[in-house]
Amino acid sequence: MSAPIDFYFDFSSPYGYFMSEKIDEVAARYRREVRWRPYLLGAVYKKLGSQPLPNLPLKGPYSVRDFERSARFLGLSCRIPEAFPVATQHAARAFYWLADRDPALARRFALATLRAYFGDGRDISQLDAVLDLAAGLGVDRAALAAALDGDELKARLRAECEAAIERGVFGSPFVIIDGEPFWGVDRLPQIERWLEMGGF
Amino acid sequence: MSAPIDFYFDFSSPYGYFMSEKIDEVAARYRREVRWRPYLLGAVYKKLGSQPLPNLPLKGPYSVRDFERSARFLGLSCRIPEAFPVATQHAARAFYWLADRDPALARRFALATLRAYFGDGRDISQLDAVLDLAAGLGVDRAALAAALDGDELKARLRAECEAAIERGVFGSPFVIIDGEPFWGVDRLPQIERWLEMGGF
Repeated sequence: MSAPIDFYFDFSSPYGYFMSEKIDEVAARYRREVRWRPYLLGAVYKKLGSQPLPNLPLKGPYSVRDFERSARFLGLSCRIPEAFPVATQHAARAFYWLADRDPALARRFALATLRAYFGDGRDISQLDAVLDLAAGLGVDRAALAAALDGDELKARLRAECEAAIERGVFGSPFVIIDGEPFWGVDRLPQIERWLEMGGF
Repeated sequence: MSAPIDFYFDFSSPYGYFMSEKIDEVAARYRREVRWRPYLLGAVYKKLGSQPLPNLPLKGPYSVRDFERSARFLGLSCRIPEAFPVATQHAARAFYWLADRDPALARRFALATLRAYFGDGRDISQLDAVLDLAAGLGVDRAALAAALDGDELKARLRAECEAAIERGVFGSPFVIIDGEPFWGVDRLPQIERWLEMGGF
């Protein structure tokens, strides 16, 4: 059995959302597992001295158009929320807390959160929204709230972000297959060929 | 007859080079003409306060790997030259001088220049290299040298860069079809669908 594919994303990234709807299915076709790894693009921006795409001149207006067109191209629906981009540390921390207990549940939480944000426009930066989404999947709301309030989970996410950047990860989505890095949902055709051929 | 597709690129951009090897063929399949429009990414970097990809932390090392992998994926050969990226104002000015006289010749010059740079590693930032490439296609070397030395052609390229940015162009390749902008060679599948369906 090959090592799992790593799938890095930020909960506030439309391209990361698109990949989240595709990567498991593509990987399964080649009998590969996917390890979902939310992290914070903010940590990358700090390192690169850059900013979220929508804030940039020229790239900003283009990107909004490209988000929506790319969603249509991929057969997905996506409405850029009014609050965009937003801080996603609560969602990412909740994910890792769940992942340590039940990886499949953590993934359902991630998908539910991404769909709530990009489908229904819910502001997932809010602690209550994250707790509600988890509770809706049967998670103990009070236990998660306590964990999100503690230092341990904060340190955990910080370590995940540092490890990602240390590994060369800098975007969302960012997929690593057997050491080969792929940045962007537009690399899906290359990812498919890589999985099919074992490299090219 | 529909309006031509605009294809913006910088002579020092690998992704621009890849698109140059594809766009005419794709457009022809849908009976569309392509207007090649070299410009200077440096003008965009100044506007955005950004830098060439290879100079950036994290993105730099990834991009070199992605250039070569994307070339293989597209069935092209590409060796990143020792001098990379380079200034391309001589090549871009020569292109417009030729385009005003013989558009087909200008395109042959552009392709020859891109292939000399990304195929053979010739330093196309050098005036002599540009003159040699043009002369190799039968162009009057002395007349082109005189034009490249004059202010008129400098003003022309400056105006082309300003008009591109004014229009929202910021990358290479950057393709505009009936007002719809596509950034990156990885948008080729979307470009194809757009041409086929007249939008989506």
